[in-house]
Amino acid sequence: MKFIRLDEPGAEHPAVLATGKDGVERCYRLESLTPDIDGEFLAGGGIARTRAALEAGRLEEFPHAAGRRVGAPIARPASVVCIGMNYALHAAESGAEPPTVPVVFLKPSNTVVGPYDAAPIPPRSEKYDWEVELGIVIGRSASYLETLDDARACIAGFVAANDLSEREYQLPGAAGQWTKGKSLPSSTPLGPWLVPADELDAGRLRLRSWVNGEARQDSSTADLIFDPATIVHHCSQYMLLEPGDVILTGTPEGVALSGRFAYLTEGDVVEVEIEGLGRQRQEFFRAAPAREAVKA
Amino acid sequence: MKFIRLDEPGAEHPAVLATGKDGVERCYRLESLTPDIDGEFLAGGGIARTRAALEAGRLEEFPHAAGRRVGAPIARPASVVCIGMNYALHAAESGAEPPTVPVVFLKPSNTVVGPYDAAPIPPRSEKYDWEVELGIVIGRSASYLETLDDARACIAGFVAANDLSEREYQLPGAAGQWTKGKSLPSSTPLGPWLVPADELDAGRLRLRSWVNGEARQDSSTADLIFDPATIVHHCSQYMLLEPGDVILTGTPEGVALSGRFAYLTEGDVVEVEIEGLGRQRQEFFRAAPAREAVKA
Repeated sequence: MKFIRLDEPGAEHPAVLATGKDGVERCYRLESLTPDIDGEFLAGGGIARTRAALEAGRLEEFPHAAGRRVGAPIARPASVVCIGMNYALHAAESGAEPPTVPVVFLKPSNTVVGPYDAAPIPPRSEKYDWEVELGIVIGRSASYLETLDDARACIAGFVAANDLSEREYQLPGAAGQWTKGKSLPSSTPLGPWLVPADELDAGRLRLRSWVNGEARQDSSTADLIFDPATIVHHCSQYMLLEPGDVILTGTPEGVALSGRFAYLTEGDVVEVEIEGLGRQRQEFFRAAPAREAVKA
Repeated sequence: MKFIRLDEPGAEHPAVLATGKDGVERCYRLESLTPDIDGEFLAGGGIARTRAALEAGRLEEFPHAAGRRVGAPIARPASVVCIGMNYALHAAESGAEPPTVPVVFLKPSNTVVGPYDAAPIPPRSEKYDWEVELGIVIGRSASYLETLDDARACIAGFVAANDLSEREYQLPGAAGQWTKGKSLPSSTPLGPWLVPADELDAGRLRLRSWVNGEARQDSSTADLIFDPATIVHHCSQYMLLEPGDVILTGTPEGVALSGRFAYLTEGDVVEVEIEGLGRQRQEFFRAAPAREAVKA
């Protein structure tokens, strides 16, 4: 099963892609089960109810699903938590040692957009960078978890993510805080699909990115320093994770920050893909400059 | 006018405190104007509508208001943005130079609680610290603002805040990211009131804190390195601010991190007060330890 949200921003409809006994994948409406794919749906057994409804043939097919805009596969989260430098080779290309405990930061949840939405480069940005990442979607509240098994039980599923980052804003002059480079409008494309945790082995997924068709990142989640259960357990010691929250697990080597590739410019096309979680594609445009930049 | 939210967590009722021509302050229900005090209320002219309804005598008095729990004066924000080291003497006691541009970080919005709620010290925390702060409440969407006047127009009002911080989690081993020390459950008491920006000169407010009745912080918002309009303008260059979002503007000197005072322990009572914005009071208790700590 692949959970998906279709139609315009703020008015997405919940749906699920499932392959029938005839081997054909079809898209079904989920409004008969839930108004949206969100924390309440996940915490309330929505995945199991969807599976049962599919098996009973109770879901209506979604007409013309292929032609519709795809939104993020989860409604706006309360928190978007991120893990930094969680692949050893990316830590090295960033000029840092691999961390001995997870490095945690936050993005505003209003950065979440769909996987194919056109992507704005900030008006004065010269160092806008891509980051393919495995995203964890939380399915039940997590606070001060005891064991890794408890943490695993809090993971509803996984999504692909692009953690777009402005390196000039992220790094200098901010007392080390990465927030300004990690908060830009539309900087967190998610999706296209949410796959339930029990239908995907997240431990050995190939994840890749391309710019204008040229390969950039090509690694495996097997190279994660801290795996999803460790991350959820660790974060729960410091914050309350809520159903529908998203944790981005960090990016592998192959970003522009390495110095090996140019930063993004208008007209560039970025694709990110994770095995089993689909491929995103964003075409970049320069956001309308602030009026003060026009006057300057 | 003082906007206030009364009754139990998650079921607060919107209300307003206003002083009549007889000089007596009364509390009025706001359900006839809005289901809650939130971004939609603020962006939709709710402050002006409340003022008009008060002047016309159209609001019903809130019965037994004095005996009710007080919630945060704004419904759960989308983003809680924070400014670090924004008072020169606090930067010095933290061992840092005063910043030349605002230092920005985020807290999860699920940390927001009422001003008198009992406050948990995290199970294994030994360095839990208080921080009185002036909080800005955003009244309209702000992105790439041009001028400080534009920024001022986006400020709906002000609240008092306590930015509770765990210093051991905040500082070492996190690649400089403060998130783990700034995300703990119930670590952002707000209120008791939200005062509209046009009824308060935020530029010279005394702000103070006490632990068990002993003075700790005692400064003035006149000592802010970056004032509210500058902060809103600056943040809008890096993120979309939404109605109902809260920005905490930083804390003055006099926290435990200075080494001059003990960190918080069970039974301590912290009070924070900002002139015109009311006084908070939290009694601290030790949160139930995680089961793994019990076993250890």
